[in-house]
Amino acid sequence: MNKQQLFNNIIRKQSFLCIGLDTDIKKIPQHLLTEEDPIFSFNKAIIDTTADLCIAYKLNLAFYECLRSKGWIAFERTVNYIKENYPDQFVIADAKRGDIGNTSEMYARTFFGELDIDAVTISPYMGEDSIKPFLSYPGKWAILLALTSNIGSRDFQMTKTADGERLFEKILKKSQEWANDEQMMYVAGATQGNLFTNIRQYAPDHFLLVPGIGAQGGSLEELCKYGMNKICGLIVNSSRAIIYADNSIGFSEAARTAAGEIHQQMKEQLQTMIRK
Amino acid sequence: MNKQQLFNNIIRKQSFLCIGLDTDIKKIPQHLLTEEDPIFSFNKAIIDTTADLCIAYKLNLAFYECLRSKGWIAFERTVNYIKENYPDQFVIADAKRGDIGNTSEMYARTFFGELDIDAVTISPYMGEDSIKPFLSYPGKWAILLALTSNIGSRDFQMTKTADGERLFEKILKKSQEWANDEQMMYVAGATQGNLFTNIRQYAPDHFLLVPGIGAQGGSLEELCKYGMNKICGLIVNSSRAIIYADNSIGFSEAARTAAGEIHQQMKEQLQTMIRK
Repeated sequence: MNKQQLFNNIIRKQSFLCIGLDTDIKKIPQHLLTEEDPIFSFNKAIIDTTADLCIAYKLNLAFYECLRSKGWIAFERTVNYIKENYPDQFVIADAKRGDIGNTSEMYARTFFGELDIDAVTISPYMGEDSIKPFLSYPGKWAILLALTSNIGSRDFQMTKTADGERLFEKILKKSQEWANDEQMMYVAGATQGNLFTNIRQYAPDHFLLVPGIGAQGGSLEELCKYGMNKICGLIVNSSRAIIYADNSIGFSEAARTAAGEIHQQMKEQLQTMIRK
Repeated sequence: MNKQQLFNNIIRKQSFLCIGLDTDIKKIPQHLLTEEDPIFSFNKAIIDTTADLCIAYKLNLAFYECLRSKGWIAFERTVNYIKENYPDQFVIADAKRGDIGNTSEMYARTFFGELDIDAVTISPYMGEDSIKPFLSYPGKWAILLALTSNIGSRDFQMTKTADGERLFEKILKKSQEWANDEQMMYVAGATQGNLFTNIRQYAPDHFLLVPGIGAQGGSLEELCKYGMNKICGLIVNSSRAIIYADNSIGFSEAARTAAGEIHQQMKEQLQTMIRK
């Protein structure tokens, strides 16, 4: 999916919501545990009730890996289900991978070549050759960690370099030597609202994947104020606040209600953007 | 496995070799492809012919993930096979994980809680709360990327901070606030031999996991000169140069020969260490 298609989806659906399928076997409703593949059953129900409200789904690999081979089966089934039934959805593997060239090549082949996922999150610490293999698949995206939503982001990402910029700013700048905004996005945490001005100085036209709304406490309004650009430029993720909105038999309808509330706020933000 | 046990194994076996099981279905001998689980069959043969020459095996997750659920089965079978048959081996999941706290917890649970792996490699970019969950399992190790063996390590790891230290040095320093050398190691690439002096200034007593010997071109002698400490302090990994030494029916014997050559060099280095 290219940048224009992503923007078209945002306008058509009046949403820039990404739903995080961080599906934890310990948190899903009890009645699903008798299903043959509880994780997939949960995901399918969530997807079917929310697909018109969001433009992307993000699958966090940790939550699938913890069930090992069974988890990988649920992961693949979920990806395939979205691709077959909702082909306009942007599917993100939140994997935070990144390794030496020949290893990153394997990861890229898995996520893009075998599974036809649209984007993978990548840790930039190992530099250019760890990222380049993800850039050789047309229409696929590398999403680099820039400024994450957690408290530990202060430890290294905010480090001031001898050139006077912070490490996350250096990463934003340097990585643009490797790809443009048609192949690369950045993770920027919503808990760091006021820093979006800095991020936009370095990456005015890029899409940003923004976690931290909801359970992590970030504000959508503040985020849009500082982070939105002319083509929205934001894919805002919410996981726990949507998928675990309710733990009973009505879980998927509750998820729809929770997603609907965010959708409504996003609609307003997009209308403000268009009026500008 | 604690630090003393690791050192005891090194002295007893006269080796600090780690064999990297970067097992690629496209590179293993043809005759194995008819086996029910070719990756596991390959690994088992390599392990059985090399276990007396090395003290650790490192499994690079990318090479297993690319076969998805089947790959995870081969990964688990390999880990279990080593644990059951060679309990003195230190098993490393080369996963380069690292995410917000609740996600890192899932990764730690998978590798340490479920699979009883001894150590996981972690990318430090997301800071303290991304690493801490790996430190709550006694006898298990977090191996942080410090200075990697690839060319891209120059992009960010070598960045000079405003305090005059380089980013990898800051990571070595800062991370020691979270755990000591009984729970934490660092990845330091053998292709950066002369920088080991700097690494040892910040981490004199830590074990270092060192990739880059062999296919990537690092020299063992130079590495030992600058990087060895009183208790060896090095776990040196070689993957391709050992496991793909030969592609015929005699592949595992060829792997043994290749491992034996490195073992011989390591023996000499350890004797030099003891004489000092």
